[in-house]
Amino acid sequence: MASFPDAVSLLCDFLRFASVSTDPSRAGDVSACAQWLAEHLTEIGLASEVHPTPGHPVVVARNPHKAGRPTVLIYGHYDVQPEDPVELWQSAPFEPEIRNGVLFARGSADNKGQIFAHIQGIAHVLKTKRELPVNLILLVEGEEEIGSPHLEAFLMEHREALRCDIIAVSDTSMVAAGVPTLTYGLRGIAAMEIRVKGPSMDLHSGIYGGAVRNPAVVLAHLLASLHAPDGCVAVKGFYEAVQPLQNWEREAWAAVPFGEKQIEANTGVPAMGGEVEFTALERIWGRPTAEVNGIGGGFQGEGTKTIIPKEVFAKLTFRLVPDQAPEVILAAVERHLREVCPAGVTLEILPGHSGEPYVTDPHSAYGKAAQQALHRVFPGVQIALTREGGSIPIVNTFQRVLGVETLLLGLALPDCRAHAPNENFPVANFGAGILLNQALLEELSKVQES
Amino acid sequence: MASFPDAVSLLCDFLRFASVSTDPSRAGDVSACAQWLAEHLTEIGLASEVHPTPGHPVVVARNPHKAGRPTVLIYGHYDVQPEDPVELWQSAPFEPEIRNGVLFARGSADNKGQIFAHIQGIAHVLKTKRELPVNLILLVEGEEEIGSPHLEAFLMEHREALRCDIIAVSDTSMVAAGVPTLTYGLRGIAAMEIRVKGPSMDLHSGIYGGAVRNPAVVLAHLLASLHAPDGCVAVKGFYEAVQPLQNWEREAWAAVPFGEKQIEANTGVPAMGGEVEFTALERIWGRPTAEVNGIGGGFQGEGTKTIIPKEVFAKLTFRLVPDQAPEVILAAVERHLREVCPAGVTLEILPGHSGEPYVTDPHSAYGKAAQQALHRVFPGVQIALTREGGSIPIVNTFQRVLGVETLLLGLALPDCRAHAPNENFPVANFGAGILLNQALLEELSKVQES
Repeated sequence: MASFPDAVSLLCDFLRFASVSTDPSRAGDVSACAQWLAEHLTEIGLASEVHPTPGHPVVVARNPHKAGRPTVLIYGHYDVQPEDPVELWQSAPFEPEIRNGVLFARGSADNKGQIFAHIQGIAHVLKTKRELPVNLILLVEGEEEIGSPHLEAFLMEHREALRCDIIAVSDTSMVAAGVPTLTYGLRGIAAMEIRVKGPSMDLHSGIYGGAVRNPAVVLAHLLASLHAPDGCVAVKGFYEAVQPLQNWEREAWAAVPFGEKQIEANTGVPAMGGEVEFTALERIWGRPTAEVNGIGGGFQGEGTKTIIPKEVFAKLTFRLVPDQAPEVILAAVERHLREVCPAGVTLEILPGHSGEPYVTDPHSAYGKAAQQALHRVFPGVQIALTREGGSIPIVNTFQRVLGVETLLLGLALPDCRAHAPNENFPVANFGAGILLNQALLEELSKVQES
Repeated sequence: MASFPDAVSLLCDFLRFASVSTDPSRAGDVSACAQWLAEHLTEIGLASEVHPTPGHPVVVARNPHKAGRPTVLIYGHYDVQPEDPVELWQSAPFEPEIRNGVLFARGSADNKGQIFAHIQGIAHVLKTKRELPVNLILLVEGEEEIGSPHLEAFLMEHREALRCDIIAVSDTSMVAAGVPTLTYGLRGIAAMEIRVKGPSMDLHSGIYGGAVRNPAVVLAHLLASLHAPDGCVAVKGFYEAVQPLQNWEREAWAAVPFGEKQIEANTGVPAMGGEVEFTALERIWGRPTAEVNGIGGGFQGEGTKTIIPKEVFAKLTFRLVPDQAPEVILAAVERHLREVCPAGVTLEILPGHSGEPYVTDPHSAYGKAAQQALHRVFPGVQIALTREGGSIPIVNTFQRVLGVETLLLGLALPDCRAHAPNENFPVANFGAGILLNQALLEELSKVQES
């Protein structure tokens, strides 16, 4: 890395690719982004390759490995969420803009800005010291936002080449600006689309209304049946495998400088919702949910159209905690919905992507090294040990296929607007990420030595 | 009228106007349609005028009125429903096409085909006999599909010029092909849009899910709360003013050659829904409903987007029966929704158009004349005395402002797909409508004489 401004400028180049993995019409942008990234990794001195998959490509880069030092795999993703509703962006989602020291662009926080901080940390060490303190494998995929459908097969196929001792991922958040955060747990996810189909065409609600079941009314009943009045998920068996929260966790989280007040300020909601016997943080980090991500059907235009819609749909995701298994949850929800669904309509259930929840020990040798690196970058500030509500399903795949634990060292902020309009990443956090990468690789190199 | 083929060809010209009254971008098409119609009415020998309103214009035409004969007002509308979803049409909605004797186009049944049958009946009599047997007022408006917001003021302003003895409207259906039908009741309507607003932006469902209320989940609870498990509307006071069905009506309707089997065949639904203690026809003709016409919000694209949507909406209409009052029902529903809605979201309720239910006596002198006209066009077939589930709010306005009852003589068929893709009207029914107009005006002229 020549200079910090150059690093920021390169990040902006990276952000200009509209690498939206869920949109088939953007496959060319995704692929061009992978190509650009691999060329950059070659330029900074790593051996890099673009590996095709049946979906979007995986970029892998490495330094020359030597015996006697640990192998660290740094994982990230170059794909991003869709940018819609695009009219709510203050600046174009794929034209990065810095306002008041904050970089605005789709992917700036999730995950291009964070993985690129690692890359610039590595570039700096390679340029100034010619050598990294560890054996490095950099793995940057293009399908994280759609559930990494081809990464497991890729890991299986390249298991030998990807052998490593520890994995580091920066795709999470700091609990608050300036508070170094080590995340030791993630929620899993299970996705499902449901479609309720009634008449073979939209019907005049006067000519048929009252005698024919309205698919939108049925959908409302199905969705409403997912929650009990106390905020719990009302699907039989949903909580069966849930690990109760430990007392030390509940105490640690109560001390974290982030809670209902910050959530209300960040989101603009007038009041909290959810399970009444848990705090907001506990609900997000340690409790499972059922969410409706989108609904549609019937007349959505201006004015009124007096129809009974032929078909309506809802997109659902369930956030899971240890030891809930996505396939068990999807089956329980399907059973529940089919029980609730009345005659007179057809219910179609399409399972989507899924990922298991994750929890690891923040006090392992590598966990302590990560805490030490955080201390060096944020001297004098107490480290927050947290879980996160989001899902990085690949972390479980790493554990299963490579047998390796993952350190989650996030640098985004809670109001980074990941997945929403005006996604952003403070330029200072990008800088901190560059420093953290250097400290982290040094601290991890000592674990092997000790 | 020169010939029946010419009449069909003129109807096709009428149908080519995309006179969608709810769509502000189509105001030009609506106005061009009114202009074309007025010119045609002048051509056939009526004195016609296009009256501007604050919305779309009203077309009025008349013959020279003479003392000693009844004045008949024939009402119809030249505006149509939106054509979407346009991809489900077999032929373009505004390019009329005749397949197997059936004319397909938006508005073919509702209402251009039916009002134009009256016009061609009048044209034929004017051409062959030079004079109509009654004083005629033809009133064709352009805002029926949006609840006729400016017609009441128009009627008030022109009350003297519109004085009449009886009104005839063909904007309803025959209960089955070949069964002459006199409709003596209509349901009313009350429309409402509800919007549930939560966070000030779409949120990442991992970062916030569980602690923030999801507007789509809240909407589902609101909509689900509108119905009880037995199919009744669960809003307090909803049924308070409902007139119970008379025994003679329930018996007459049970004899009508139309019911669950035909509804299932026409609509493709696998089973009926609705209030369990009423037959399908009773639910449609004599019972009120709460319908969801459309829902939307959050991510509706391809794939998955793991968000908590900032806002979702539903479009609702309530079909009403005597003596329910739209404003009372809208207030009861609003009270109900605000009671059910939890904290953590904002509920916006936007009332839409409304119209009162209607019922008249099919055995009055004019009612008997209408039955006689039906006998002449459909000899030897028993007349079905029915109500309809649709709403023609203007019928109540006629009663209130002009003090006159309305005869409903529909010629559409139950599978005419009004308001849906592939709306259609059999060419034979258009022909029957031309004959019915002639028989009707003759029979009505005798009422005064007797």
